[in-house]
Amino acid sequence: MRCLLTKSEYIVIESYMLKQMENADMAHDRHHIHRVLNAALDIYKHEDPVDFDVLVAACLLHDIGREKQFDDLEKHCHAKIGSEMAYGFLLSIGWSKEKAAHVKDCIASHRYRVNIQPQTIEAKILFDADKLDVTGAIGIARTLVYSMRIAEPLYIIDDDGNIVTGGGSGEVSSFFQEYNYKLSKVYTTLFTNRAKEIAQKRQKTAADFYSGLLDEIRENYESGVRSRRVEQ
Amino acid sequence: MRCLLTKSEYIVIESYMLKQMENADMAHDRHHIHRVLNAALDIYKHEDPVDFDVLVAACLLHDIGREKQFDDLEKHCHAKIGSEMAYGFLLSIGWSKEKAAHVKDCIASHRYRVNIQPQTIEAKILFDADKLDVTGAIGIARTLVYSMRIAEPLYIIDDDGNIVTGGGSGEVSSFFQEYNYKLSKVYTTLFTNRAKEIAQKRQKTAADFYSGLLDEIRENYESGVRSRRVEQ
Repeated sequence: MRCLLTKSEYIVIESYMLKQMENADMAHDRHHIHRVLNAALDIYKHEDPVDFDVLVAACLLHDIGREKQFDDLEKHCHAKIGSEMAYGFLLSIGWSKEKAAHVKDCIASHRYRVNIQPQTIEAKILFDADKLDVTGAIGIARTLVYSMRIAEPLYIIDDDGNIVTGGGSGEVSSFFQEYNYKLSKVYTTLFTNRAKEIAQKRQKTAADFYSGLLDEIRENYESGVRSRRVEQ
Repeated sequence: MRCLLTKSEYIVIESYMLKQMENADMAHDRHHIHRVLNAALDIYKHEDPVDFDVLVAACLLHDIGREKQFDDLEKHCHAKIGSEMAYGFLLSIGWSKEKAAHVKDCIASHRYRVNIQPQTIEAKILFDADKLDVTGAIGIARTLVYSMRIAEPLYIIDDDGNIVTGGGSGEVSSFFQEYNYKLSKVYTTLFTNRAKEIAQKRQKTAADFYSGLLDEIRENYESGVRSRRVEQ
């Protein structure tokens, strides 16, 4: 589908997004939004037909509900809040109900932890573009800074002195738990071939980093225990 | 030198440290202190003679000045403040002036950014053990979470749309700048052979992560620029 979005309309949508995300953390800042948009435009070239306007608006607005999620992490889901905010905003700048609802649906189904599956190609591209920012080194970097934002530790040590790597649902939060629950599994959740291709290129960097980190920490603790034994 | 530090004295010093560091960030929390102590005990086995008590106390107390540094980043140096706090505390629990001053000197010279060179073997081991926590994947992880704490971006994009990688002194702060200014160079600053050996094992993980991250971001922006050109 041809691009109908004018440059001035793009700027209006982007400005609204930047205003909603003034206090965004480094993992979900405007650079994240632009990376998601860049990745979506890349995938877009390999899919046809795609509603370009819906895709661009959905990318720009997909995280505008994050502020409210931070107010109450248990109660709010940023995908649901953001989808409703985006719908209202797009109507206010003259978009049709049909197009605004399409953007709303894309945003509502972009979250990894929510059981709403993306239905349209635009929703699938947004999902994939957003998940690409969880793959590879960028996924590791963003997860680490986000751990800091929500005061999560890097790892947990159990009562026997072992490092807990986790991975199951509902386990105690840590970077290791998040890696094994989400980061290592995100590669199999993608819909489009182009996203799978980009993700596959990045996978080894993330896996090597995780296993390197685990080895370093394990060896450090083991050498500490050995040295204490020598001294006793 | 034989270990004179009793278990109860160790607990007294550790408890004081934990109290001073109640609000510590994930990059400088009690896990960091224990990793530094573990690494120092590992290096200690390869060096002789070493004052074990001075080394353990210096490791446990080396970051107790960080809280005050956060109050005013420009004005305070945590190594200087921490060294004075440690001296006063050790005297208060009955350590001799000579031993307490030795710990003070170790802490005062442990910081990468300060031009006070470690003089004694205990000061060199503390420096190396602390710098080992800046090498490899653990160094990357800690630097990323610390970037979040001090609200540093992952990278800067200049007016021409290029990613600034930095590395010089006094350049605009970002994770990329910190990697090129400190993380990539810390390997050549170590004093002891054992620390060099551990660091060398970790170096590739950090370098691969950095180059992977840079490639991912560059490719993402380039594909975004190309896609926009197609649409124009």
